[in-house]
Amino acid sequence: MSVWIHRRPENEVAAEIAAARGPLAGLRLAVKDNVDVAGMPTTAGCPEFAYTPDRDAAAVAALRAAGAVVVGKTNLDQFATGLVGTRSPYGAVPNALRPEFVSGGSSSGSAAAVALGEADIAIGTDTAGSGRVPAAFHGIVGIKPTVGVVGTRGVVPACRSYDCVTVFAADLQLADRAMEAMAAGAPDRPWPSAVALAAPPEPVVAVFDSLAGLDPVWQDAFDRTVAALRERGARIVTVDPEPFLAAARLLYDGALVAERYSAVGEFVDAHADSVDPTVGAIIRGARDIPAHRLVSDLADLERLRARAMDSLRGAHALLAPTAPIHPTIAEVRADPVGVNSKVGTYTNFCNLFDLCAVAVPAGTAGPAQFGVTVFARAFEDAVALDIATLVRNGDKGFPDPVEEAWPLRSAPVRELVVFGAHLRGQPLEHQLTGLGARWAGPVHTAPRYRLGALDTVPPKPAVTRCADGEAGVSIAGERWLLSPAALGDFLSALPAPMQLGSVELDDGTWTTAFGCDPAAAATAKDISDYGGWKPALAAGAV
Amino acid sequence: MSVWIHRRPENEVAAEIAAARGPLAGLRLAVKDNVDVAGMPTTAGCPEFAYTPDRDAAAVAALRAAGAVVVGKTNLDQFATGLVGTRSPYGAVPNALRPEFVSGGSSSGSAAAVALGEADIAIGTDTAGSGRVPAAFHGIVGIKPTVGVVGTRGVVPACRSYDCVTVFAADLQLADRAMEAMAAGAPDRPWPSAVALAAPPEPVVAVFDSLAGLDPVWQDAFDRTVAALRERGARIVTVDPEPFLAAARLLYDGALVAERYSAVGEFVDAHADSVDPTVGAIIRGARDIPAHRLVSDLADLERLRARAMDSLRGAHALLAPTAPIHPTIAEVRADPVGVNSKVGTYTNFCNLFDLCAVAVPAGTAGPAQFGVTVFARAFEDAVALDIATLVRNGDKGFPDPVEEAWPLRSAPVRELVVFGAHLRGQPLEHQLTGLGARWAGPVHTAPRYRLGALDTVPPKPAVTRCADGEAGVSIAGERWLLSPAALGDFLSALPAPMQLGSVELDDGTWTTAFGCDPAAAATAKDISDYGGWKPALAAGAV
Repeated sequence: MSVWIHRRPENEVAAEIAAARGPLAGLRLAVKDNVDVAGMPTTAGCPEFAYTPDRDAAAVAALRAAGAVVVGKTNLDQFATGLVGTRSPYGAVPNALRPEFVSGGSSSGSAAAVALGEADIAIGTDTAGSGRVPAAFHGIVGIKPTVGVVGTRGVVPACRSYDCVTVFAADLQLADRAMEAMAAGAPDRPWPSAVALAAPPEPVVAVFDSLAGLDPVWQDAFDRTVAALRERGARIVTVDPEPFLAAARLLYDGALVAERYSAVGEFVDAHADSVDPTVGAIIRGARDIPAHRLVSDLADLERLRARAMDSLRGAHALLAPTAPIHPTIAEVRADPVGVNSKVGTYTNFCNLFDLCAVAVPAGTAGPAQFGVTVFARAFEDAVALDIATLVRNGDKGFPDPVEEAWPLRSAPVRELVVFGAHLRGQPLEHQLTGLGARWAGPVHTAPRYRLGALDTVPPKPAVTRCADGEAGVSIAGERWLLSPAALGDFLSALPAPMQLGSVELDDGTWTTAFGCDPAAAATAKDISDYGGWKPALAAGAV
Repeated sequence: MSVWIHRRPENEVAAEIAAARGPLAGLRLAVKDNVDVAGMPTTAGCPEFAYTPDRDAAAVAALRAAGAVVVGKTNLDQFATGLVGTRSPYGAVPNALRPEFVSGGSSSGSAAAVALGEADIAIGTDTAGSGRVPAAFHGIVGIKPTVGVVGTRGVVPACRSYDCVTVFAADLQLADRAMEAMAAGAPDRPWPSAVALAAPPEPVVAVFDSLAGLDPVWQDAFDRTVAALRERGARIVTVDPEPFLAAARLLYDGALVAERYSAVGEFVDAHADSVDPTVGAIIRGARDIPAHRLVSDLADLERLRARAMDSLRGAHALLAPTAPIHPTIAEVRADPVGVNSKVGTYTNFCNLFDLCAVAVPAGTAGPAQFGVTVFARAFEDAVALDIATLVRNGDKGFPDPVEEAWPLRSAPVRELVVFGAHLRGQPLEHQLTGLGARWAGPVHTAPRYRLGALDTVPPKPAVTRCADGEAGVSIAGERWLLSPAALGDFLSALPAPMQLGSVELDDGTWTTAFGCDPAAAATAKDISDYGGWKPALAAGAV
């Protein structure tokens, strides 16, 4: 029972599953026990701390509204303080695949429940890596979104400034669908108007130029992952890990741990006997840290972040092993703080630097699951997801790539339909992918347009609406999604005679699409009968 | 000499003025003595703290590059800690207009230098109101930009997270020109892609529903200012001051003062005798504040900010008295902390809430100068400037309104030229002003276009380029400036048959402008001979 702290009766769950409706209908949801589910105690891994909320946390409510069914509350490192899954009075959570090894934490039970097939999706939280490390140790997926895009109402804070709600699932598609539901509510932090909604087809991926502490059995697995990414079109660049590792050290060794004291310190002081000794020592140790040290640590952090982000300029993402080692439970018991700290080497910096992350399996070394994490800039969650998809593409049985990245349902998104040189694979596609635009499939106009080929370099399409009564055709196009600022920038850079305006599609909706100045359109070669640019190209008509 | 701490020899200054080039050529610049000027000591109001930098602060370098000439370094409340101008071993700075009254601080000497005519522009800094209070007490203008848009390299920190470089000048136009130069360098914080670049013609301005502590002699002046704003088209709404005042109390009474200890605490501890007793007590008092209290104060501040910003929803700006009282030097000496705190009632919350501000004179009550401050959201500096202009418009001798608001040179700005229903005063202008677009004057196309009137409601223009060899005319239009996201949003909402593309202007440049789908353009009534929409309207041709 160490995976679960509270489990609902099976008949209740079965009845709810049978009645469930919505995009996640009937998916079994495990909830980390520092996240409120109405009517069930929230322990945060400490029975004496427990309270019974009368309202679901925002993330739980969103998943339930989408049809997911809560099966229970999962064990965790107490107060979400740890990356190992051993710091709980409900017992250490053994790894679901190799019981003598740790499950990873602090979202230990949530990841194990998914790995054991006892839940389809699970809510975790992540401050230092708690939504990623347990995914890596179980060969599953963990999505750690940008801080603030999933509301934290109803979550017991660990480090309030850096806490995230996360999701675990066996594959990226399911995790993406769960994130879509979770992020649909009101975010704690608004999405900006300029945000990349996709990785370009040939992304630049940074890796650290050395991987201190990486278990030798995993170096090969990491090298294979990088080589495979390169084969799939990524350009690999290297960066110095130093600012990243220095920030990681600040999270536990510096004054930031005062956030943990602020969250639960009074309780810990008053209930010394109820608190896990390791967790208690960490939190009590923060009581007397002076505020001016926190100020200077935050200034140091900002300098480290500036250096790190500078080094990532030009890269779309950073790839690193999720954890450098996978310790046994015995190893953690022998050195609870030291081993925990090593586990967090490549996760701790993430939230401090305001990065988002996707942790995915990346092979095995004997019985050891190996996981990597793709990090991207704040709000570039779709970029991280795309590159994680690229990492996974080589795996047998990997489902189709994620086309409907969850940020499309949360971020401000605008449409642009293109008909010629900006189609996928055509010479100006890069203008859209360079702005973070996401390809969203083929469309057809209403049968009221003409398509011409302009004598430009490269040739461009002149799509014009027919006069009333004039015969038109349905023109094949492609829909791209992009941020409002990217659309404005695209328009600002658009040369004559191309214009953008509203075009009617065959489903009767209108959307922003390419048009053309009349004088130029009048000079175009009519290729309407091909019904689209690519057939006309194939026929040699352009 | 209490206004100045260091003054350059007049002949040196005169020679530099004679040789100066650039948009600010020959303007005399005073620099607050916590901001570096290469080769002059930076004292921060404490001789023992002094060092001589070999490089100008970023803001000084930018103003010098634009032609301003440094005349000297000005006195301040030591370590920029105070709003009164009395806390300096170089002597209290007397008010330039009424010497028994305080100058306001901490940028006391900078404001006094401008008020005395000894400088044309002056650099201040502002954490709690130091760039605004001294402006109010001297009947001059102080611009406190959004935190981070002017780089703080070379500034002695007070509260690093909230410090701003500011500018003083006798009028808004000159202050705006100085800001334009100062903000042209690399900001500490990037401008977002969606930002209002202007206040709409009839802005909504919030005022507090009560003004606790406002000197009775000033209540009339404030009421007159509000009434005048209303007459000039503003809609006035009221908001509860409570969250604003609560945040103000947090700045000095809470743990945030630990930022001041972090900045200069070690020096203050080691040099007790060199430090102003009031300043020393404030900074030393922060040494033992625990970090967890800072964490919880910051969480409180975030909650207060959310409430305050919620209450301002729908308002473009907030208007308040800059200071509620103008104390005498004797009053401050009798109660240095209490009086200082009262002075900051309506300034302290500003930087904590991430607002920008413009402080302007707003009449007098007998010999007492009255000043008001216009606050706007982060990065909406142009909105604050426009509404400050509206406040000032009623004053005799007030120069022309500021058209070229300084953020236009720093923020990402895109252009859109309009020809008909979106012209100023026409029925769809509000679509642009509602997106924060800024009117930027008339333009004419190259003489290669035709103008038609479409049979739409309201009537819209069809501007089309002539075919090669065909006779065209130069069409009158108007240029609007807007953020990239606003341009994208405008395009997304644009109904057929209107299109946007690139149009050639009469100066040979190309810019984004309105076009039209060919089929609709063919149905338009040709009104090209009028040369523009407004003449055609006037002639009854539309």
